[in-house]
Amino acid sequence: MALIMPAADKAVMGERAALVAELGRLLPADAVISAASALGPYECDALTAYVQRPLAVVLPRTTAEVSAVLALCHRRKVKVVPRGAGTSLSGGALPLEDGIVLSLARFNRILDIDLANRCLTAQPGVTNLALTKAVEADGFFYAPDPSSQIACTIGGNVAENSGGVHCLKYGLTTHNLLGLEMVLIDGTVIRLGGGKALDGPGYDLLGVITGSEGLLGVVTEVTVRLTPKPQGIGALLAGFDTVEAAGAAVGAIIGAGIVPGGIEMMDSLAINAAEDFCHPGYPREAAALLIVELDGPAGEVEAQMDEVAALLNAAGARSLRRTRDDAERLGFWAGRKSAFPAVGRISPDYLCMDGTIPRARLSEILTKIAELSAHYGLRCANVFHAGDGNLHPLILYDANIPGELDKAEAFGADILRACVAVGGVLTGEHGVGIEKRDLMGEMFDETDLAVQQRLKCAFDPAGLLNPGKVFPVLHRCAELGRLHVSGGKLRFPELPRF
Amino acid sequence: MALIMPAADKAVMGERAALVAELGRLLPADAVISAASALGPYECDALTAYVQRPLAVVLPRTTAEVSAVLALCHRRKVKVVPRGAGTSLSGGALPLEDGIVLSLARFNRILDIDLANRCLTAQPGVTNLALTKAVEADGFFYAPDPSSQIACTIGGNVAENSGGVHCLKYGLTTHNLLGLEMVLIDGTVIRLGGGKALDGPGYDLLGVITGSEGLLGVVTEVTVRLTPKPQGIGALLAGFDTVEAAGAAVGAIIGAGIVPGGIEMMDSLAINAAEDFCHPGYPREAAALLIVELDGPAGEVEAQMDEVAALLNAAGARSLRRTRDDAERLGFWAGRKSAFPAVGRISPDYLCMDGTIPRARLSEILTKIAELSAHYGLRCANVFHAGDGNLHPLILYDANIPGELDKAEAFGADILRACVAVGGVLTGEHGVGIEKRDLMGEMFDETDLAVQQRLKCAFDPAGLLNPGKVFPVLHRCAELGRLHVSGGKLRFPELPRF
Repeated sequence: MALIMPAADKAVMGERAALVAELGRLLPADAVISAASALGPYECDALTAYVQRPLAVVLPRTTAEVSAVLALCHRRKVKVVPRGAGTSLSGGALPLEDGIVLSLARFNRILDIDLANRCLTAQPGVTNLALTKAVEADGFFYAPDPSSQIACTIGGNVAENSGGVHCLKYGLTTHNLLGLEMVLIDGTVIRLGGGKALDGPGYDLLGVITGSEGLLGVVTEVTVRLTPKPQGIGALLAGFDTVEAAGAAVGAIIGAGIVPGGIEMMDSLAINAAEDFCHPGYPREAAALLIVELDGPAGEVEAQMDEVAALLNAAGARSLRRTRDDAERLGFWAGRKSAFPAVGRISPDYLCMDGTIPRARLSEILTKIAELSAHYGLRCANVFHAGDGNLHPLILYDANIPGELDKAEAFGADILRACVAVGGVLTGEHGVGIEKRDLMGEMFDETDLAVQQRLKCAFDPAGLLNPGKVFPVLHRCAELGRLHVSGGKLRFPELPRF
Repeated sequence: MALIMPAADKAVMGERAALVAELGRLLPADAVISAASALGPYECDALTAYVQRPLAVVLPRTTAEVSAVLALCHRRKVKVVPRGAGTSLSGGALPLEDGIVLSLARFNRILDIDLANRCLTAQPGVTNLALTKAVEADGFFYAPDPSSQIACTIGGNVAENSGGVHCLKYGLTTHNLLGLEMVLIDGTVIRLGGGKALDGPGYDLLGVITGSEGLLGVVTEVTVRLTPKPQGIGALLAGFDTVEAAGAAVGAIIGAGIVPGGIEMMDSLAINAAEDFCHPGYPREAAALLIVELDGPAGEVEAQMDEVAALLNAAGARSLRRTRDDAERLGFWAGRKSAFPAVGRISPDYLCMDGTIPRARLSEILTKIAELSAHYGLRCANVFHAGDGNLHPLILYDANIPGELDKAEAFGADILRACVAVGGVLTGEHGVGIEKRDLMGEMFDETDLAVQQRLKCAFDPAGLLNPGKVFPVLHRCAELGRLHVSGGKLRFPELPRF
């Protein structure tokens, strides 16, 4: 059925056509997408419950082209959503109906590898895994390893300050980033960080950009630190009768001064889903499973494995296995790495949450999640980075049952509130995006949010870069003017859900 | 000789008296110092060539008192210079004639030690070394270890983003900081960072504050990460015939994927000054000396020592010694740690510079320094953190020879320009302060500086916190208003030099 288009919409269409024409003058013909049929792939990211069509998509290839596009958007007051591979779980790359998507897909080259300075320079559209692939023959790797590393890009990792299984030992993106080139909303190009040098004078703008979720500028070049590949690596697999005992074991390992490469925990539901899915040999009867990976100089790993084994036994491990070779180690990980699809098989839909707590509060928060699960009548599988207290509860629901997504979202919000209540934070590595923006008030008061918005305004006073993300829409800092696309509503009014 | 006081000065005196009276109403009697005779200890920091008397000094004991003082200064438009132990080498704590000094000396308590979360919370006036002392019996330490660690405070470390011998492996202050409490210039108290959790949402304000040199707020509480004490530790001492060969050896070690606890280099002048001073047994005939310290799991250090020894020999080491026990290791360090006073014995005065370069450019920059030394006719001893490319050239001069300080400063500025020219930065750990503010233009263009000033304005729009530091006085960002105490001159006009 054809709709009669109101006059206001006609004006919008005319403005859109003018914008697309102007973009076409700045970029090659194949770098501007505006046909409705071609916009499909850009309508959502990995937070697939939210979908929206942008005005247009541009695919620049050079910093000069990014600069020209942003300068144009700045002049015309057009909103811009930067996009890497679109793997954000918090809706960070969700387009805006009245904005363009600036895709970095064509920034896909590694520019420099410098082993004596232990660093690598790449364009932002290079995937996380490609960085490691480029240097592994030389005995190095790029440490942060989000689960999506085969697809997600280093530019997106910078935007979200991504972590991964091994960030307990090797740090998040922000700890492995040395320098950036970035374009400001007015088209100005700046370089941040010490590049190949350790540190530099001036404010740590590099740190501010890392995790800023595309609200401050568009990154066009990235220099990262490389890490030597450990000579030895091994893992332990321990089953516990209670999540409390497993949580206490984590504290005992860290408190003993051992820093494993990673410590992962899975609860009963996740253990059994993984076992059904790929048979990694997990103890089905355990209430909680720990995978502790140790890496380091050759010969030493075995000694540390002994020490950790003793700690796990002392903490009441009911079953304990240790790897004798790398094939066995990869077997231990197979279940953990397939836990998300494994859970996907036992439920039509699931919501992957992301909160972080002080690790000493692990068992407390898991008890709270179990209570909430009973309260909402929704199952929840826990698969997470226990070593650094980064939880990933998977809330199981069925989108076809009316109201169940709302219930799942309310459950998720309650989990995050509980994280904040024990001294934790709203996100470990997935970012705020649109998913958690309205929970920011749980963690930050008006003063905190005002300071953050003053920082946002210092970079983008007109609020054109990825608006509607990160900051709660109800929050408004009077002296700073309008920052948000919508006000007075808790959700994007224009966002259909699927 | 008594001076006749002009009317303008009388007005200033009256304002000062009113300010002191108001401060007296906010704080206990012993917490406000205004008698000229008592202000002496606060007139300078470790950049002793610059001295200036503040209006008054306050010594608050609680966050509420800091808040009240800042709110008063905000209302009265009084400048504030925060001060830790006053060990800044860049003049970061140099008082202003028309401002007060806010000393954190009474914030000297450790508030919480939490080994299961591997973190410690302290007030900012606690010394760096006291943090390690508080946890070493439990097998932990606080990793950043500036040479002044016995005196400098953790609050000052945060302000300058301090490093130390071991930051090659363990990172700078910014990599070991988990959370902060801070008071803004209007008296608002905010908390930054994830605290005990890994990371949080929102901008990395914690990172922005670290290294911000007191221009954004006053830190009143600090939570840091603790590091497990390595089980084993050993060191190698290698002499080389040329600095080029020593520089190449550093690159070879790093390029082989080894991350030593620290790699220090000393040149011939420093070697001989140290040998004269405390007889550590350094090879006097060497052009360059490397100390490579390796730490890690017990038993493994020896294997890594073998590997590094082979690399040092392959790089052409003329002499090579390795430690057999910890007493010998401390002997290796004795000369390095006393290098500054040792150089102080062979010259009436010296200027300690601080620049950072990509480590692959080490030999190039040392050649340049030698050329500059000949050009200025001033000796220069090089003692520095070679592993992370952080240079500390000590320029020898005699302040009693007219013009020699000027010459030394010009020499120092040329060294820093040379660092920037090879892709390095103006400071590694000493900060910009007043020492390097007029060199900021060597590294940052107008756009870069404008972005930094916009960030400064987001926190302190009136420019009351530590003005005159960091930003070049000639730089002025029109739309942002007046940020600097003085304009059009390259030095504080009011600063007498001694």
